[in-house]
Amino acid sequence: MKLYDSPHAPNPRRVRIFLAEKGVSLPMVSVDLGRLEQKGAEFSAVNPLRRTPALELDSGEILTESVAICRYFEELYPQPPLFGRDALERARVEMWQRRIEFEFLAPIIHAFRHSHPAMREMEQPQIAEWAEANKPRAERFARFLDAELAQRRYIAGDVFTIADITALVAADFARPARIAFADDLGHFARWRAEVSSRPSAAA
Amino acid sequence: MKLYDSPHAPNPRRVRIFLAEKGVSLPMVSVDLGRLEQKGAEFSAVNPLRRTPALELDSGEILTESVAICRYFEELYPQPPLFGRDALERARVEMWQRRIEFEFLAPIIHAFRHSHPAMREMEQPQIAEWAEANKPRAERFARFLDAELAQRRYIAGDVFTIADITALVAADFARPARIAFADDLGHFARWRAEVSSRPSAAA
Repeated sequence: MKLYDSPHAPNPRRVRIFLAEKGVSLPMVSVDLGRLEQKGAEFSAVNPLRRTPALELDSGEILTESVAICRYFEELYPQPPLFGRDALERARVEMWQRRIEFEFLAPIIHAFRHSHPAMREMEQPQIAEWAEANKPRAERFARFLDAELAQRRYIAGDVFTIADITALVAADFARPARIAFADDLGHFARWRAEVSSRPSAAA
Repeated sequence: MKLYDSPHAPNPRRVRIFLAEKGVSLPMVSVDLGRLEQKGAEFSAVNPLRRTPALELDSGEILTESVAICRYFEELYPQPPLFGRDALERARVEMWQRRIEFEFLAPIIHAFRHSHPAMREMEQPQIAEWAEANKPRAERFARFLDAELAQRRYIAGDVFTIADITALVAADFARPARIAFADDLGHFARWRAEVSSRPSAAA
């Protein structure tokens, strides 16, 4: 297997952190989004939707979508479980994963893509008003998360899961998106410091 | 258990179709999005993020996010499997599910929310330019899907899965979003007629 990966972008980082938590390493092929390599003929043949990451299996089959790739590795390497340990926990993890994706990561990515000068070619049209509309959504969700994290150690319960990975990647990507979280979110800050101190966060 | 459901909206419909495919029925509580019932005190206590669907378990715990609810029912009622039958098939279903969500359902929902007069109160600010930017994305993805459906019967392979449910719900929601698919997408039309003729499509 080999993984097509890109630095800086949030979705490839989710897979790198996931693999680090599993203790799995595999050959990586770097696709430079800054130079629009994902739009070139070579990578378009790998993923016609022109997004990283992408996992090439030994059969030649390509799996795309960061969470699909993570879920495949969860089945190949079940320990430690990062999608939940029983039916109800897996449902909770999926719920939090999706809340984070749609209410936190997505607004942050939209704010970035529709405001950052580096995205001018990739996101057409760039709509400044849409970038601005997304910033308060991400800020409000961080406050919601703060109240939730007053009640438990991690996003989806008492163990670290893929929902924490997605939330960490989103929180860190707020910086290039020029979104600042309020200073009074103590539980969010406690959680963020804790997950950031895991070795996997450097992936 | 009981399910908080709303007519017309795409995400609650995904769960209704899923349950119909499983042959499961359960008590439903209707939340009228047209009258903004989801923003009232009663439903905000169920889901503070004010979105339907939501599943109330017998313990009182609430599960939100349509796919989390579907995944929970997949574990309670494994037959017929709608998320794939082995590790690789589950990864493929997840990949297609997410491609459909991000490249097809999301653009259609954005086009609807940012253009439809009925959404004026719910989506603030409504950004007409953002609605327009999303329409060609959904149209392009339908063309991509058409080429994929030349190669196999269903979205993710030779069996019907949750990816077909998401794609059907998205395709049908294109109408209120005022997105029309091209006439020459024969494989897409064949697939759409087939999944629309299943009894579950009426759910």
